[in-house]
Amino acid sequence: MTSSSKITARKTLDKIQPYSPGKPIWEVQKELGLDRVVKLASNENPLGPSPKAVAAIQNGLAGLNRYPDADASALKKAIGEKYQVTPKQVITTNGADELITLISEAFLEAGDEVIVPSPSFSEYDFGAHIMGATVVPVQFKEGFEYDVDALISAVTEKTKIIYICTPNNPTGTYIPKSDLDKLVNALDDVLVVIDAAYDHFADASDYTNGVEYVNAGYPVVTLETFSKIYGIAGVRVGFGIAPEAIIQSILKVKEPFNVNTLAQLAATAAVGDAEHVKTSQETNKAGRQQLYTAFDELGLTYIESMANFVLVQIGEDGENLYKQLMAKGVIVRHGKIWGLPDYVRVSVGTEEENQFFIDALTSLVVKQA
Amino acid sequence: MTSSSKITARKTLDKIQPYSPGKPIWEVQKELGLDRVVKLASNENPLGPSPKAVAAIQNGLAGLNRYPDADASALKKAIGEKYQVTPKQVITTNGADELITLISEAFLEAGDEVIVPSPSFSEYDFGAHIMGATVVPVQFKEGFEYDVDALISAVTEKTKIIYICTPNNPTGTYIPKSDLDKLVNALDDVLVVIDAAYDHFADASDYTNGVEYVNAGYPVVTLETFSKIYGIAGVRVGFGIAPEAIIQSILKVKEPFNVNTLAQLAATAAVGDAEHVKTSQETNKAGRQQLYTAFDELGLTYIESMANFVLVQIGEDGENLYKQLMAKGVIVRHGKIWGLPDYVRVSVGTEEENQFFIDALTSLVVKQA
Repeated sequence: MTSSSKITARKTLDKIQPYSPGKPIWEVQKELGLDRVVKLASNENPLGPSPKAVAAIQNGLAGLNRYPDADASALKKAIGEKYQVTPKQVITTNGADELITLISEAFLEAGDEVIVPSPSFSEYDFGAHIMGATVVPVQFKEGFEYDVDALISAVTEKTKIIYICTPNNPTGTYIPKSDLDKLVNALDDVLVVIDAAYDHFADASDYTNGVEYVNAGYPVVTLETFSKIYGIAGVRVGFGIAPEAIIQSILKVKEPFNVNTLAQLAATAAVGDAEHVKTSQETNKAGRQQLYTAFDELGLTYIESMANFVLVQIGEDGENLYKQLMAKGVIVRHGKIWGLPDYVRVSVGTEEENQFFIDALTSLVVKQA
Repeated sequence: MTSSSKITARKTLDKIQPYSPGKPIWEVQKELGLDRVVKLASNENPLGPSPKAVAAIQNGLAGLNRYPDADASALKKAIGEKYQVTPKQVITTNGADELITLISEAFLEAGDEVIVPSPSFSEYDFGAHIMGATVVPVQFKEGFEYDVDALISAVTEKTKIIYICTPNNPTGTYIPKSDLDKLVNALDDVLVVIDAAYDHFADASDYTNGVEYVNAGYPVVTLETFSKIYGIAGVRVGFGIAPEAIIQSILKVKEPFNVNTLAQLAATAAVGDAEHVKTSQETNKAGRQQLYTAFDELGLTYIESMANFVLVQIGEDGENLYKQLMAKGVIVRHGKIWGLPDYVRVSVGTEEENQFFIDALTSLVVKQA
C-alpha cells in the first residue's frame, strides 16, 4: 500500500489560480442573514432564461434516461443558420469555458506561448497552464483600449494562440474592426480566438464578432455562449465557429456527450427567440445608461461598456466598499482578481436591481466623502 | 494571413480513436424508415429517469439564467451521506467520462504509462492519449476474468494509473474483492481508478466498488455515474470518491461550472430515490435471466454479467447479424470496437424490449442455421 499523499498532481498545475466565481445569492443570504440579495456579479441575464428554452426543456424530460446526441446535430444546424456558417464549422461545448480548455488540449504543447490581453477572462490562463504553456500578458492602453501593436510585437516563434475578448471582460472595451483586420493579417501560423461572449450587447458600428474572418478562411475561432443574452447559464452551452479543419482538430479532444440533452434543446430554442434577445438588449442598454448617470452624479470614474457590465473605479478602499455593498445585499465583483483593487465590476440588472445597487452605493460613498 | 489548414493539432492526438456512440433511436428510425426501434446499445435505464429527479428539474427551471453552484455543495453532501464519505472526498463531473479526462490532466505527463484491461471502456485510452501517455493493455483470462497477476506484472516505473472497470464494460465480468485486495497492496505510487459505473447491478457477495479502499486511505478513486441505474444519462453527472488529497489535485483542473444546475438538482434527488433504484435492479436481474434463457435456447455462448448488459457470441458473421438486427429495429453494439467481431453487447431492456430483441435475433439465427 502507498499513502494517497504520494500521488501528486503535475508540477505545471501549481500555476493554476483557483477560479473565484461570483457568490451565489443563497450563500450570501445565509451568511449575512439578509432577506433581499441582488446579484450583479456574474453578467447573467436579469430577465431570466429565454421562455422558449424553458418550454423546450419541459418537452425533453421524459427521455433523460437516454444519452445526448453526441453530434448535437439539431443545435449545430440552428447555430449554422443563425450565424451563416455550416454545421461543420461549429462545435458545441459544456459552456464556452470548456471550449477554451479543448482548444488548449488540441493545439498547445508544453513551452508554447499564449498571448492574453491583461486584464481579461481568467480561463485563458487556465487552459494554457493545463497544457504547460506560458501565458504572455499584454497590457491595454489608457482607458483599457486594445493595443494591437503591442499584441503583434509580443508574438514569437513559440506563439500558438492569441486571445481577443471583445467586448472584453472585465473592462467592457472592444477591439475595432480595423485593428482586428491589422492583427489577423499580421500573423503567421497563430490561432486567433475571438471571445465574443458579450457580442449581443455591443452596439458600436465598427464591432465584429469575427465570424467574417472564419468565412474568409483565416485561422480564427469565434467563441460564443448561451450564458449571457440567451439567459441559460445554468444549463451550460457554449460554441465555437471556425474553419472546418480547425473544428475537426478540436473535435478530437471533445468528450462525446459533453453537451447535455436539456442544454441542446434549450439552446436550439433560444437561438430562435428573437423577442427575448431584443428585450434583453434594450434592458441592458437602458441599464448601462442608468448606471452611467448614477456614477456621474457620484463623481465616480467608469469605463464605457459594450457589454452587460460596467467597470467602475470606487477608490483605494475598494475591497472594503465591495464588502459593505455585500452587507447591504448587493453582490458585485471586486477588481482584485484582475489586479484592479480600486475597481468593482457591476453587471447590468433590471432597472429595479440597478436602483437597489445605486442606493446602496450612494449611501456608502456619501458616508465616506 | 495564414491558411487555417496550417494550424495543426498536437501530434499525440493522432492516437485518439473517434468514440462510436450507440446510434440514437431517431437516427435509425429515419435512416431505415422504421416505426418501432428498440435501443439496447448504451446500457441506459429502460424504465426512464428517476421520477424524483424529473420533479427536481421542474423546480429549477426559472433560475436557469444563473450559473450553477461551482462547488455542487448540495449534491456532494447527498453523495457523501449515501456513500459514507465526506463531501471533500467527492468530486462531481459532467458525466463520468469527464472525470477520466480530469484524472488524466491532473496526473499524467507525456511518456507515463496507464494500464488498461482489454477489452474495456474506450475513454481510458482517450484520457491517456490527450496527455501523451502510453496505454499498456492487459488481456483478461479465459471467460474475461480479471488477471490480477498480469496486471501487477505490467507495472513499471512509468506506471501512473491502473483502471479497473468492475463490472467491466463490455464483458460484464467483475474483479473479486480478494483480487482487488491483492492488487492495491502490491502497488507503490500508482493510482487505482475503480470504475464502478455499473455497481448497482452487481449482486455477487465478493463484489466491491472500492469505496472501502478510499476510506482506508489507499490511493484509489471510485468512479460512479448517474447515467445507469439512476436513469439520467441525458443531464450528465458522474462523480469520484477518493482521499481528500487526490480530490484536491483533480479539482485543480476542473472547470468551475462543469456540472449544470439541472444535473445537480436531478442527481441530488436521484440519490435518494430508493424505490426507482430497487425497481431498476429487479427489472435488470429478471431481464438478464430472460436473455440468458433465450441464448441457451438458441445455443449461443454468453458471458454471465454483473451489469445491465450481456456480451453474447453470435458467430463469425457478427457484423452482418448486427446490421440485420438494426434493420429489424433493434440497436445493439457490435463487438468490433473492442476487438470482438463475433460478439454483440446487448443492454438489458424492459421485459417487452428484451422479447422484441429475442424475437428478432431468433428469426435471424434460425434462418442462418
